[in-house]
Amino acid sequence: MRNGDSVMADKRWPGCASSLKGVILDLCGVLYDSGEGDGVAIPGSIEAVKKLRASGLKLRFCTNETQATREKFVAKLQRLGFDVNVSEVFPPAPAAVALLRERGLRPHLLVHAGLLPEFDDVDKNNPNCVIVGDAAEHFSYQNLNEAFRVLIGLEKPVLFSLGQGRYYKEMDGLKLDVGVYMKALEYACDLKAEVIGKPSPTFFQSVLNDMGLQPHEALMIGDDLVSDVGGAQHCGMKGVQVRTGKYRPGDEKHPTVTADGTVDDLAQGVDMILSQRKQ
Amino acid sequence: MRNGDSVMADKRWPGCASSLKGVILDLCGVLYDSGEGDGVAIPGSIEAVKKLRASGLKLRFCTNETQATREKFVAKLQRLGFDVNVSEVFPPAPAAVALLRERGLRPHLLVHAGLLPEFDDVDKNNPNCVIVGDAAEHFSYQNLNEAFRVLIGLEKPVLFSLGQGRYYKEMDGLKLDVGVYMKALEYACDLKAEVIGKPSPTFFQSVLNDMGLQPHEALMIGDDLVSDVGGAQHCGMKGVQVRTGKYRPGDEKHPTVTADGTVDDLAQGVDMILSQRKQ
Repeated sequence: MRNGDSVMADKRWPGCASSLKGVILDLCGVLYDSGEGDGVAIPGSIEAVKKLRASGLKLRFCTNETQATREKFVAKLQRLGFDVNVSEVFPPAPAAVALLRERGLRPHLLVHAGLLPEFDDVDKNNPNCVIVGDAAEHFSYQNLNEAFRVLIGLEKPVLFSLGQGRYYKEMDGLKLDVGVYMKALEYACDLKAEVIGKPSPTFFQSVLNDMGLQPHEALMIGDDLVSDVGGAQHCGMKGVQVRTGKYRPGDEKHPTVTADGTVDDLAQGVDMILSQRKQ
Repeated sequence: MRNGDSVMADKRWPGCASSLKGVILDLCGVLYDSGEGDGVAIPGSIEAVKKLRASGLKLRFCTNETQATREKFVAKLQRLGFDVNVSEVFPPAPAAVALLRERGLRPHLLVHAGLLPEFDDVDKNNPNCVIVGDAAEHFSYQNLNEAFRVLIGLEKPVLFSLGQGRYYKEMDGLKLDVGVYMKALEYACDLKAEVIGKPSPTFFQSVLNDMGLQPHEALMIGDDLVSDVGGAQHCGMKGVQVRTGKYRPGDEKHPTVTADGTVDDLAQGVDMILSQRKQ
């Protein structure tokens, strides 16, 4: 185990071994780094997922990925070598579709072209709300204006944001995430968006429900201190941050969120979990 | 005078006639509506500027226009038929250049191509701050990412915003303004921008200094309730809103800013001023 003793010695690891029954993993920045094509697996992460699966712990994947349908996204993970199934992966879009149905809302979509099929069966005529996802290159001035005009033209404007991340890391550098454009539209229309996805407690709770676990029985591992770690903690879970993906050293001195543990990467985190379970 | 009596009757006109020595006008949405080419003069506004000039009142133009150099911008106003000189027009870019010199800062510019010549003599190598203006179509995902990466790479990131407007009106509809992208970068980098331009009190004060007037001796007329009216009031001036440009009926029930007067257009506002001076 790499550096495990020192990590435990400084008490930066959550003492939840005895009650631990499941682990929730973030994907981008924990299992792989995105970029051209499928991106690239983070060293040791494919093996780490295998070890977790063999441990008997329940395993789910909770992501704010909104650039592709769940099916295409999972196929990419499988091509990278990960043992992951569609039913184990929780992204915001299916949750958004359920919410639209529940409230009888018709969205104008400012999302990545790859995500559009998730909304194929949703009525998008005469929109009465806007959904913003990680549209990336699709975040042109023209497209943001179009979403703005829909919102400003509604008597009661409703904006849903698929996540609220600030930025993420691709192979060629940091990229602005959906939260930045959510804030832009919030300011333009003087409203507050409803976040679907991490760090929304409703979203974490839906994953716990699927696992059949209580919050104290699950551990979240992610690279985003606020969305992954803070969101999980807000929901009653322990949250561990990896020093891969969008991790920055300043995270360890964050004014409001303190991770229950910080590890170099998923491989080290999984080793920590499994060694504690043996004790 | 159109509707003047009713406007005065409901006390929505500032009682500053005796002390009034100067008027500051916003440009876009008050003198003209922008759009394709030079845009179009708002009916009655060319004549209203002439009347103000003939009245003996001091006259300045205070704008957050950042899509062109001051020279090009004033030439456009002159083509539209307005009697306006470069030295009377106060936009944010020249103020920004002065501030950069004062603090020894080298900017990365996220501004409209038409504004770049204002920064010709400014050192832009190895940037240690970012300036965001109304870049319009230039607000691509790639360009916003580039500005973000400069900021996030600085030990002490400094962001200047040339105004903080939410949106403005062009002939083909409402368009997102610089404030929206300022908020986007503020959120992405977890910082607070410094606003150069309206509603910054420093900016209004620099116009008053140029006029040689005290705040109570000047009146601001604009279409933006927060930037024009609220900003001027914050500086000790009276602020009047016109019901042209980006004006929306909801402005008259705004929770924090109440105009000292509201008029249908600049023509009516100027008639009000001149009729009060005669009394």
